[in-house]
Amino acid sequence: RILRFLYLCINELPKPGFMHQTLDELNIGTFQNVVTAKTSTPVIEALNMFVNHRISAVPVVDDQGKVVNIYAKFDVINLAAEKTYNNLDITIDQALKHRHKESWFEGVVNCLVTDKLEDVIVKLVQAEVHRLVIVDVETHVKGIVSLSDILTFLVLKPMGYEPNKKS
Amino acid sequence: RILRFLYLCINELPKPGFMHQTLDELNIGTFQNVVTAKTSTPVIEALNMFVNHRISAVPVVDDQGKVVNIYAKFDVINLAAEKTYNNLDITIDQALKHRHKESWFEGVVNCLVTDKLEDVIVKLVQAEVHRLVIVDVETHVKGIVSLSDILTFLVLKPMGYEPNKKS
Ligand SMILES: Nc1ncnc2c1ncn2[C@@H]1O[C@H](COP(=O)(O)O)[C@@H](O)[C@H]1O
Ligand SMILES: Nc1ncnc2c1ncn2[C@@H]1O[C@H](COP(=O)(O)O)[C@@H](O)[C@H]1O
Repeated sequence: RILRFLYLCINELPKPGFMHQTLDELNIGTFQNVVTAKTSTPVIEALNMFVNHRISAVPVVDDQGKVVNIYAKFDVINLAAEKTYNNLDITIDQALKHRHKESWFEGVVNCLVTDKLEDVIVKLVQAEVHRLVIVDVETHVKGIVSLSDILTFLVLKPMGYEPNKKS
Repeated sequence: RILRFLYLCINELPKPGFMHQTLDELNIGTFQNVVTAKTSTPVIEALNMFVNHRISAVPVVDDQGKVVNIYAKFDVINLAAEKTYNNLDITIDQALKHRHKESWFEGVVNCLVTDKLEDVIVKLVQAEVHRLVIVDVETHVKGIVSLSDILTFLVLKPMGYEPNKKS
């Protein structure tokens, strides 16, 4: 069975090898056509981005393309729960002001393309988020790395990729 | 612009109307081919389900098809973070025992197909989860309703669906 095969392959690899490698080296994440929003983007437009691109969040950027926030599906459901679902024309900025009053939001969690996979995973788990925004040192958005990307890598890795083994 | 059009359509509807309707009536959620796991399913197999079906979680059922837990992408990342990522052959049951020690897990959040949309949304927000397992009164799994389903409904609704308006 294919799963058994995958599993055997995974176990044959020098295990922690790839955990010490960077997103860059492993090519994990989305770097092309990253969908972003501005603080002035209406929530209804963000909602369309989620549905049309089948993504679960968009980084919110300023005029320089620097990430200032993140807006996720869950935020829209939050709005809906507050019976303001008829106000999908309010901007992300207005919607997020609301969120900021709640104590649980502690800022966007970013990472660098040169971060190691293990560090990215630890960041995801500690922040309890489903994706990190990949930024450069000036916090310009460069990409997205989501749970999906890492799990897809874990499953597909044995097929074509062998870290430190190519001679 | 199409978004503007969508927005206008949404605003023209008798707003809170659909919030008082049930999942059943609105046909929100996935009811066919629901992917489930057993407590004895290896984590690596669950991982393959996530990647192959592009889903973010599977209900864990007992031999009668009753839901006893839920296993999500985030749980796999948690395993990976604990450096046990080389143990993807452990079963979901073993992996979840681990989780149960942490205080934040408070059981699977279920709903009925006869629950109103507004109640489902409130449940999602209060439990801070991305999907509910739709069950019958004996907790057999009947479907899944995820954030994606509700947001897709919110976006597409104006096109073909007008609650309480069909004569
Ligand atoms: N804002 C975004 N722009 C482009 N791609 C994204 C964005 N968010 C997530 N992705 C990618 O879309 C896929 C599914 O992401 P997610 O639904 O967030 O797990 C993954 O490959 C992500 O890297
Ligand atoms: N275990 C599952 N089996 C079948 N469909 C699912 C399952 N989990 C989620 N879905 C559906 O897959 C789509 C994406 O789900 P999600 O990635 O969880 O937001 C939604 O239409 C869900 O209803």
